[in-house]
Amino acid sequence: MKRLSLVVPLLVLMAQLAPSSQVRAEEGMWTFNRFPVERVQKAYGFAPDGAWLDHVRLASVRLAQGCSASFVSPNGLVMTNHHCVHSCIEELSTPKKNFIANGFWAKAQTDELKCPDLEVNQLVQITDVTARVMKAAEGLADAAGNDKKKAEMSAIEKECATSDKLRCEVVTLYNGGVYDLYQYRRHQDVRLVWAPELAIAFFGGDPDNFMFPRHALDASFVRVYEDGKPASVEHYFKWSTAGTKDGELTFVAGNPGSTSRLDTVAETLTYRDTALVSRLMYLSELRGMLIEYARRGKEQARHSMSLLFSVENGLKAYRGEADALFSPGFIEGLKKNEDALRAQVQADKALANSHGGAWDAVAAAVVKARPMTERHGLLEGGQAFRSDLFGFARMLVRAAVELKKPNSDRLREFTDGRLPGLQQRLLSPAPVYAEFETFRLAFGLTKMRELLGADDPIVKEVLGKESPDQLAARLVKGSKLGDPKVRKKLFEGGADAIAKSTDPMIKLALLVDAPSRTLRKQMEDEVESVMRKNHELIAAARFKVQGTNTYPDATFSPRLSFGTVKGWVEDGKTITPYTTFGSAFERHSGADPFALPKSWLAANKQVDLTTPMNFVTTNDIIGGNSGSPVFNRNAEIVGLIFDGNIHSLGGDYGFDDTLNRAVAVDSRAILHALEKVYKVDRLVNELSGK
Amino acid sequence: MKRLSLVVPLLVLMAQLAPSSQVRAEEGMWTFNRFPVERVQKAYGFAPDGAWLDHVRLASVRLAQGCSASFVSPNGLVMTNHHCVHSCIEELSTPKKNFIANGFWAKAQTDELKCPDLEVNQLVQITDVTARVMKAAEGLADAAGNDKKKAEMSAIEKECATSDKLRCEVVTLYNGGVYDLYQYRRHQDVRLVWAPELAIAFFGGDPDNFMFPRHALDASFVRVYEDGKPASVEHYFKWSTAGTKDGELTFVAGNPGSTSRLDTVAETLTYRDTALVSRLMYLSELRGMLIEYARRGKEQARHSMSLLFSVENGLKAYRGEADALFSPGFIEGLKKNEDALRAQVQADKALANSHGGAWDAVAAAVVKARPMTERHGLLEGGQAFRSDLFGFARMLVRAAVELKKPNSDRLREFTDGRLPGLQQRLLSPAPVYAEFETFRLAFGLTKMRELLGADDPIVKEVLGKESPDQLAARLVKGSKLGDPKVRKKLFEGGADAIAKSTDPMIKLALLVDAPSRTLRKQMEDEVESVMRKNHELIAAARFKVQGTNTYPDATFSPRLSFGTVKGWVEDGKTITPYTTFGSAFERHSGADPFALPKSWLAANKQVDLTTPMNFVTTNDIIGGNSGSPVFNRNAEIVGLIFDGNIHSLGGDYGFDDTLNRAVAVDSRAILHALEKVYKVDRLVNELSGK
Repeated sequence: MKRLSLVVPLLVLMAQLAPSSQVRAEEGMWTFNRFPVERVQKAYGFAPDGAWLDHVRLASVRLAQGCSASFVSPNGLVMTNHHCVHSCIEELSTPKKNFIANGFWAKAQTDELKCPDLEVNQLVQITDVTARVMKAAEGLADAAGNDKKKAEMSAIEKECATSDKLRCEVVTLYNGGVYDLYQYRRHQDVRLVWAPELAIAFFGGDPDNFMFPRHALDASFVRVYEDGKPASVEHYFKWSTAGTKDGELTFVAGNPGSTSRLDTVAETLTYRDTALVSRLMYLSELRGMLIEYARRGKEQARHSMSLLFSVENGLKAYRGEADALFSPGFIEGLKKNEDALRAQVQADKALANSHGGAWDAVAAAVVKARPMTERHGLLEGGQAFRSDLFGFARMLVRAAVELKKPNSDRLREFTDGRLPGLQQRLLSPAPVYAEFETFRLAFGLTKMRELLGADDPIVKEVLGKESPDQLAARLVKGSKLGDPKVRKKLFEGGADAIAKSTDPMIKLALLVDAPSRTLRKQMEDEVESVMRKNHELIAAARFKVQGTNTYPDATFSPRLSFGTVKGWVEDGKTITPYTTFGSAFERHSGADPFALPKSWLAANKQVDLTTPMNFVTTNDIIGGNSGSPVFNRNAEIVGLIFDGNIHSLGGDYGFDDTLNRAVAVDSRAILHALEKVYKVDRLVNELSGK
Repeated sequence: MKRLSLVVPLLVLMAQLAPSSQVRAEEGMWTFNRFPVERVQKAYGFAPDGAWLDHVRLASVRLAQGCSASFVSPNGLVMTNHHCVHSCIEELSTPKKNFIANGFWAKAQTDELKCPDLEVNQLVQITDVTARVMKAAEGLADAAGNDKKKAEMSAIEKECATSDKLRCEVVTLYNGGVYDLYQYRRHQDVRLVWAPELAIAFFGGDPDNFMFPRHALDASFVRVYEDGKPASVEHYFKWSTAGTKDGELTFVAGNPGSTSRLDTVAETLTYRDTALVSRLMYLSELRGMLIEYARRGKEQARHSMSLLFSVENGLKAYRGEADALFSPGFIEGLKKNEDALRAQVQADKALANSHGGAWDAVAAAVVKARPMTERHGLLEGGQAFRSDLFGFARMLVRAAVELKKPNSDRLREFTDGRLPGLQQRLLSPAPVYAEFETFRLAFGLTKMRELLGADDPIVKEVLGKESPDQLAARLVKGSKLGDPKVRKKLFEGGADAIAKSTDPMIKLALLVDAPSRTLRKQMEDEVESVMRKNHELIAAARFKVQGTNTYPDATFSPRLSFGTVKGWVEDGKTITPYTTFGSAFERHSGADPFALPKSWLAANKQVDLTTPMNFVTTNDIIGGNSGSPVFNRNAEIVGLIFDGNIHSLGGDYGFDDTLNRAVAVDSRAILHALEKVYKVDRLVNELSGK
């Protein structure tokens, strides 16, 4: 990695100012190019150098679908969570071969099976493009400036993405204080190597999710292929057989999805009081429906399990957010920080003049957004049309229009830089289950009618004389978009093919396209543009008065955090940082989700019950970090992140190192289980470097 | 009704003070003994006198299960909402006779069918017992005083309930400013006369619920019997064939369930941020499950429909509350009022000394309640054990202990005054559906494990090695409590019979009884007692400084409100107050819930499409008012309350006469449909006084 010079004027300030005292000791999801080396050295006597940082960055990867992972052998072997490849395992399963229930093992390398949709991204280069993005909007009003900035970002991405093997993304950091171009190497031929039974991968199920003590082997291995052969990779993590000790320094490299620690109080409050409450209700209802849907039968359970997991996981995360945001004093704490910053800005007359109005401008944009948000989420966000088939239809309908435009005028997701990813999703051979599609679509349509009202014009137009159930059934039954060949033909046929199509799902996507786009444009011009501009102002003001030795909010791009193996104290009780195989067996009740799989029960005598199973660290992580490698100063794997404790769920808005903990599978647990329970020597040897 | 003299010192103040200006024109759910006659006279030139008030009070009744109703003929005919007797209609249905789908009509009086659980209460007397309740606690600390007050209330109720035909309740009014004894005449032999098809009773279903324009014939008729014959009633409402005109004065007599307009801001905020959010999630999940459960089959749909309706109804009501409580400025408004009152109290030194600390005491109690609330709701509130069978088991287990104690020492629900109601529920012949019981119980147990955690001692004790699904199935399968004879035997057998019982549901009720009682005691002693004491102080202070020409919060006891037929303006659009048969036919799409029943389609030509269907008024109502008669100054029925508009859902915390509307079925719609669609002459003649 090339250490980039910081060329933006406001960033020049960074070097001149003392480190802020606002960041707590181990708090932070740091970018690789601005990692606080001195801070780690001061606390742990270890200073990661450039080569070390480059190595761990290149050995760490992102799963484009929303997880993290790492290379763990020179032959492209990738470790991640079971729950990160659940969809792949499910898609490879059939009514007769249920790899979710029974696990998967490719005895020979040739038995490794391609995951239909999995894409692995390796961050190869970071380039600061802040000046270029800012310049594009110079002198323009908010809405026009916003359009120009996005067009410039698309242009930068297009220039960068010189081949299908590259994925380029301009990442907005510090809420617009910095724009960095991230260039990734894409790997799309990814094959499943090994996965355990769901019963142990998700032992404890939803009741234990985000809890500790914990006993889950939430691990799987996939392999990256190139030209039909296992990829040779230069940078990978070696395996530590010694694991960690209590108090040991740990690093986590991964892709935290999103935090809101730099949001203004007005934004946070409005989010809490509107979107968060709506989301808790929407997901709760969907959860109830999915639980009962799974009782229709084994196949229905298999098809819906992945969505149920993500709904339950999201629900717990949002519930954790709500617990934080509704707890007495929390908002007051945020307000105190914001007031302090605003007072500092006001104290500098020039700064007050140029930047002091930004908070009120954000607050006004929030008020403007409020009445649009629900409708926007339903129509443009797709909450009303929860269906893979509709997703394909919308992609096809929009591609036919967008791809005819110049790159800079397109909707962001249709710009050249993003086309390969879009085509991969569109042409994926992953199966589409009609019964489940109907169920999901009917749910979405019902919510649309409920939230917008039966008399809303778009609701009337979509439903006509049909009920949501009737319409969903008819659309799914009549649509041919479940066949990737049909989609390919429509994609290649462009606008003509779309106009001629009689596919009912295409017709629905056409029907809602204009009102959806109008809403999107309104949201972008009246809200997003004001937000972007004023967030940038706030970021600049913050850099100026409080220094820049801080980290940006999470953006599902690679980050590095440091911490230690450490328990915590709760209600006067000390929670020790490790669990063991022994305590897993003690927790076994025989009833799902506390039933160990047969393989484990059979290996009871062979395993060493003192082997550490899961452990917790003070690393600052959040959703998206799932599958992240935990490694030591020698860049050896000591664990695999799969969860946070319940306190970490407020992490969207802050980090409390006395309580927040990351939860990982111990490297010793993985190796011991592979050896003694699963007896998968090929994999054990590869991990051990034999 | 005897006009009661106001003997309590603090109420003497009432007469001395000017009317408060805080109550908006038509706001108020007034008690019959403190109705603001002058206010009505001033606004409408009509002064209801004592005889008029007595008449409409005695013609109005309460359904003990949670609704309102009215006598509409001298032969005990009672009008209420279809949704208020849904359970009865469902319980009388069988797989072959689905009265929910097809409606019900007793062609001859002898065809009228007894509702297993319905109880009609007529308020015959109100006695002020404030002095006696207060005296019981004189000089005692909060917890002991609270116990004594409750014991005194039980004693008063026992003295009053001199026969099984009387139900006596001491009602806490003005948050403890007044205790009134309400004596009701009980009618337990209540028979179904007529009910329409669900499709028209609930036309528009959940999407239209709490919406307007509206087109529902949410009406049913039952009849009160005495000694096996239709009861003769002296006070009943005559039917108005003329109905109302826009702007006409309307009265509503009913039993609004609960409002919180006198709560402190600390209580309201904590409720919003904890219980309300939890409830929205709990009900949303249950809703999703129920919708999908109904897809298991027709019978399952029939068994679960009543619960689904109440869940969806509750969900909308809570969502409306949330919309109000989370809307910008709402809490600030409440705080402004509270601050003004507190400032007035502080301005009077003596009052400040004696009463000024009450708000902080309530706030402290709220903080204390916070960590207990969820566990209390699950264990003592029964959220963990959603099952009729468990309800019976708990009743039996507790009755065996409680009934041996002196009346004043018992849990309130086992005091002598309440025994008849308890026995009616316990011995009800209403069917219990095993599959549905299992489903509900499993849901409750799952929520318990989720909310308390799998490692919670009580969760471990209840579940043992079983999953919630397994345990629920085993308990329901093994329990014999579905049989009323078995319950009767156990009830009569007392403690011995309970001790010897091997019924698994009895065993579960025994297992959780001690921890539930401990929690209840803690909540009563540490929270409820402090709340009661300080609410009384606040009520007294409010009376003193702001006068008493106001109404108490709703308590599911009879109230009278006045208002006018009136539309409203929304987003610049005028909503007219009436809909018609014609607009109902226009709304018919053919797909549930917008499908008119066959009877209506067949009568399309016979009906007068200009007949008013539903209408709105400014009467101040809330949940519990369902089934309330709407009548004119001549005490003639002009409508039947069945809903409020979406704005009325914030009515728990305040009333806005520009937007809040009650929604009623027009008296003309009912009569016209009975004549032209249903052709039920016997009923038409009875209503018409022929």
